[in-house]
Amino acid sequence: MKLHVPTLISRKREGETLDPAEIKLLIEGYTSGEIPDYQMSAFAMAVFFKGMDAVETAALTKAMLASGDVFEHRAGHPEVVDKHSTGGIGDKVSLILAPLVACTGVWVPMVSGRGLGITGGTLDKLESIPGFKVGITIPEAQEMLEKIGVVMMGQTDRFCPADKKLYSLRDVTGTVPSIPLITASIMSKKLAESLDKLVLDVKFGTGAFMKTEADAKILADSMIAVGKEMGVEVHAILNPMSEPLGKAVGNSLEVIESIECLEGGGPLDLRKLVLDLAEKISPVPRDELEKLLDDGSARKKFDEIVKAHGGNPADLPKLAEIHHAPVIREFPAPDTGTIVEVDAGMVGQAALQLGAGRARASDGVDHAVGFDQLVKIGDSIHQGHALCRIHARTTVDFEIAEAMLGKAIRIEP
Amino acid sequence: MKLHVPTLISRKREGETLDPAEIKLLIEGYTSGEIPDYQMSAFAMAVFFKGMDAVETAALTKAMLASGDVFEHRAGHPEVVDKHSTGGIGDKVSLILAPLVACTGVWVPMVSGRGLGITGGTLDKLESIPGFKVGITIPEAQEMLEKIGVVMMGQTDRFCPADKKLYSLRDVTGTVPSIPLITASIMSKKLAESLDKLVLDVKFGTGAFMKTEADAKILADSMIAVGKEMGVEVHAILNPMSEPLGKAVGNSLEVIESIECLEGGGPLDLRKLVLDLAEKISPVPRDELEKLLDDGSARKKFDEIVKAHGGNPADLPKLAEIHHAPVIREFPAPDTGTIVEVDAGMVGQAALQLGAGRARASDGVDHAVGFDQLVKIGDSIHQGHALCRIHARTTVDFEIAEAMLGKAIRIEP
Repeated sequence: MKLHVPTLISRKREGETLDPAEIKLLIEGYTSGEIPDYQMSAFAMAVFFKGMDAVETAALTKAMLASGDVFEHRAGHPEVVDKHSTGGIGDKVSLILAPLVACTGVWVPMVSGRGLGITGGTLDKLESIPGFKVGITIPEAQEMLEKIGVVMMGQTDRFCPADKKLYSLRDVTGTVPSIPLITASIMSKKLAESLDKLVLDVKFGTGAFMKTEADAKILADSMIAVGKEMGVEVHAILNPMSEPLGKAVGNSLEVIESIECLEGGGPLDLRKLVLDLAEKISPVPRDELEKLLDDGSARKKFDEIVKAHGGNPADLPKLAEIHHAPVIREFPAPDTGTIVEVDAGMVGQAALQLGAGRARASDGVDHAVGFDQLVKIGDSIHQGHALCRIHARTTVDFEIAEAMLGKAIRIEP
Repeated sequence: MKLHVPTLISRKREGETLDPAEIKLLIEGYTSGEIPDYQMSAFAMAVFFKGMDAVETAALTKAMLASGDVFEHRAGHPEVVDKHSTGGIGDKVSLILAPLVACTGVWVPMVSGRGLGITGGTLDKLESIPGFKVGITIPEAQEMLEKIGVVMMGQTDRFCPADKKLYSLRDVTGTVPSIPLITASIMSKKLAESLDKLVLDVKFGTGAFMKTEADAKILADSMIAVGKEMGVEVHAILNPMSEPLGKAVGNSLEVIESIECLEGGGPLDLRKLVLDLAEKISPVPRDELEKLLDDGSARKKFDEIVKAHGGNPADLPKLAEIHHAPVIREFPAPDTGTIVEVDAGMVGQAALQLGAGRARASDGVDHAVGFDQLVKIGDSIHQGHALCRIHARTTVDFEIAEAMLGKAIRIEP
């Protein structure tokens, strides 16, 4: 079968449903370089306007998945599960959920990305633990699964190269916000872990990629449908992103908060979301999961993860000293009243300004900076009391962040 | 002003109207190679779905026009006019209209293309006249205008390079059938002639690019609106392409038929269409135009054109001998009755099969082959009498063409 790409593009443009075999050839040709970027970008734009059904999207996912290496779990392996979040400010759920769920006897081969824009990603947060190595190979990861049931790694070069190539192209051709393309991008990377179950945390709101609950529902349904096509049990939870998750935003600050949560403490909204998601992919009930947080089991598993990845668990209680920002000051409330708004998007921008995130893929991140002890919506506050602590590299940075936070947080008398 | 192309594409994707200055920068960047093909093809697909208004389309036309050389007529020049046709089988109107209209005192700087698919273009037909040189420069063309008021040339390399580049891209990315892109492509090439008046012959029907009269009207209106934006008087005539124009299809065969028309004869449908179009751009009334055909004036002007372009007018009466195909045979009617259909598209395909057109841009054309003495819809025919004459290179070619024509022509008792 030989593909005539202009005809294929025209057919999608006219709203035709394409054959899975055609989609496979398209992605193979694109990955090999035989099909040029200019045809792929026109195709992506046609998909933006005309969409793809679940069978087409599954074919796209499979083709992208097949473009690189995948986990091949041994016969008789435990159930393999993972979580994916569409991303949020202060979202450190992965750091807690992976060790927690691994305590229930399933395998968690968690492959994460780096953050682009706003705050750092899971890998950036983990790298604030001295020695923590995220760049490991699939064989190494499979050894870790056998040993401790969990791995927290970055994408290797051989991981879904088709997705990498297509995502870069979409980024510069105005074709990012397409449900089937987003679905295939997320699912191909997650299903390369050869999962049995996946839970999705789909955020919506002004600070999220999906602006409305209806849009989030469409994306969730698309991912569930593709999971079904591919024989993977997919659950989705829709969550409004009305304020940052927890009380800390910034790489090492979020690790510290995660450790609190792994020790049975931490902010309630964070603990609740971890449990909501973990419940969907664990073989044990919610009260058992709570117990694993409260009795130190999850915390112990996190030590195992840190050790397996080259870090020293003894460093974990000392993270605040290790990443001590030069300027750590409270941000005093200008008025007395109730917190009615903490705009997650603006908090994220302020964190980016401090250096916690990256504007370009090639940038590094500052592990020390960010915010902690952040107020939550509904809190009462007295004038002059702290709305949060700001961890900054310089006083100028502190002042800029303070001005930005002033706009993000609204107090009503 | 610096253009952020992904944002520009996204804005068009969301249906926004772009600023003329942005469109200018886009085309300049694309022509210079600064903006890559993959962004332009995604943009073209967004335009396919979201369109462009007359101001945007005029900006696109101007930018493409400005990418290359244009005619600069001297102060006090006569009115400058031309015609454009969206193309049809047996359409040799340019060969008759250019000399005819030039007899009325206006200038006709006719820049034509080569045919791709089906039959040859105006340049291919002219080149069946020995010595006729179509590849001339704009300064040479302007000298000819001063001398004989008319020139019939091909596009130089420096003629709308942006259109050349964009058209090639659209051709392989499923973005050809977009009204604003078609409009800008046609108008930029024609307006590079620095026209005062333009008449458009917009064909519709199964054999034409526009399938319905409604589609043809949309394209015509778009071109008229862009003309208005650019200060050029544009007239459009919509013509059904129900059967080939005239009775001859093929390069030298069409020149021979054109000469008949220039001598006051030729098929009636051809003469009528020439007069309909000429009337719109000539300063004289229709009866005066008829007189110029009947009294030999237009014919004499054609001799002047041939001479100016390096040909010998004395060759014109001998074209049939010069391009004598090895196999010239009549195609006998299988039944007695009335001709109810001569499918233009299929006749064109048959001519292409004989070698009259080109399948690839790099192919040459055979000047001798084609059809003449073709029956017209409404003609009565007796079994065994000729439906046309087939001019072929070999008897095998003849037989293939005969089989194809048999399907194109329908006779009812």
